[in-house]
Amino acid sequence: MIRRFAMEIEYDGTNYCGWQRQANDPTIQATLEDALLPLNRHQPVVVIGSGRTDSGVHSTGQVAHVDLDNELSAETVERALNATIPDDICVKNCREVEKDFHARFWAKRRTYVYWVLLKPDIFRRKYAWFPGFDYDRELLDRCAVEVLGEHDFTRLCLTSTKAETRICTIFDSRWETTKESLTYQIVGNRFLHSMVRILVGTMMEIARGKYTVAEFKNLLDNPNGGVQVYTAPARGLFLQGVQY
Amino acid sequence: MIRRFAMEIEYDGTNYCGWQRQANDPTIQATLEDALLPLNRHQPVVVIGSGRTDSGVHSTGQVAHVDLDNELSAETVERALNATIPDDICVKNCREVEKDFHARFWAKRRTYVYWVLLKPDIFRRKYAWFPGFDYDRELLDRCAVEVLGEHDFTRLCLTSTKAETRICTIFDSRWETTKESLTYQIVGNRFLHSMVRILVGTMMEIARGKYTVAEFKNLLDNPNGGVQVYTAPARGLFLQGVQY
Repeated sequence: MIRRFAMEIEYDGTNYCGWQRQANDPTIQATLEDALLPLNRHQPVVVIGSGRTDSGVHSTGQVAHVDLDNELSAETVERALNATIPDDICVKNCREVEKDFHARFWAKRRTYVYWVLLKPDIFRRKYAWFPGFDYDRELLDRCAVEVLGEHDFTRLCLTSTKAETRICTIFDSRWETTKESLTYQIVGNRFLHSMVRILVGTMMEIARGKYTVAEFKNLLDNPNGGVQVYTAPARGLFLQGVQY
Repeated sequence: MIRRFAMEIEYDGTNYCGWQRQANDPTIQATLEDALLPLNRHQPVVVIGSGRTDSGVHSTGQVAHVDLDNELSAETVERALNATIPDDICVKNCREVEKDFHARFWAKRRTYVYWVLLKPDIFRRKYAWFPGFDYDRELLDRCAVEVLGEHDFTRLCLTSTKAETRICTIFDSRWETTKESLTYQIVGNRFLHSMVRILVGTMMEIARGKYTVAEFKNLLDNPNGGVQVYTAPARGLFLQGVQY
């Protein structure tokens, strides 16, 4: 009996070349699909995620769906999967869903969080970025506000990004200080390739005085203009969750 | 000019076979000694730590001393060292000390902290232990109190431990609940091989109902008696600091 399952997936992206299956490199999608083979009468499995995450990016709330031909409960699928996959991936809240549920098309909002360390911490070196330069926290806040709303992010994604449109709607964009960390949280309807890392990297360059907030603003809705952008390291970025 | 330096050392012990230099395996001591060679006119260097930590155990506050023949400031020694060692070790607060300062003999109290997860967390999998069974928190507290004071820990260390005496004085021994974690903190004048891990592992076995608190108590000051002991995984243990 073929049924559709949805699940949340946490992963430490350090040792993976991102979400999407690649020919020769380990990815989260390929690891899950390979582990699901025995739960699908050893027929090929396709796991559809809410979106791709870049190489080295982590997740605490990726959502994916998969069609499986078996008689198992969702709980058993989850347990069997967690027993086979490596310990840097964990599947949670596996449940049977409607036949037309789609992890990507049905997703309304995605939340990403980027962690910046205020001082070096070897125990978080794989999960945060320590910039190692001085910056003005207030300038970060002023940049974050500019990102809110609907904008063309052509200049704030990888130039090779293939997408029908580069317009995204941003519902939340804010920096917050926690103990020994600074976090940037962004909620949007969709995100382009490397967009959050480029936003963070470029905001930090402005906050250290390289460009002005006006120059940052000029990168938005302006496919041909603006100053150089910077990409923050993948290790600080987490896909925190997906809303449907 | 030969001077003595003291320094604090943080390390992620995951990829090391403990503190002490071994013939063929990577250790913290050997990594530091090798990195210090160019700062000692390429003559052999001996780094003396406050104590050895087991394979896989971490530190946020190991203290060590070393004699170096150079003209550099302590700050330069620290910077040069941090520039050479791998990113899972970090040296802090390097300073020149009296010629007779001794990181091991002068240490009065050592503090260890053991992290237990209340639910699995892949991002802390290398820095904490998730026991995966139910246990009674109150029994942990009752065991911890028994450990306080001066005791013979012969039954609560590795049987192969070579030490002139197995009597240690414990100044603090307590479990505390933090967000999504439980920690065991122990402060003592000295510790025997695997002693903290065996204390934690055995207390957890009692808290899950395997033995009674009376049986735990009977392991103290009783070199020949008592029930079986258990060793908690190294990955949850941190040498937090050393007092002089």
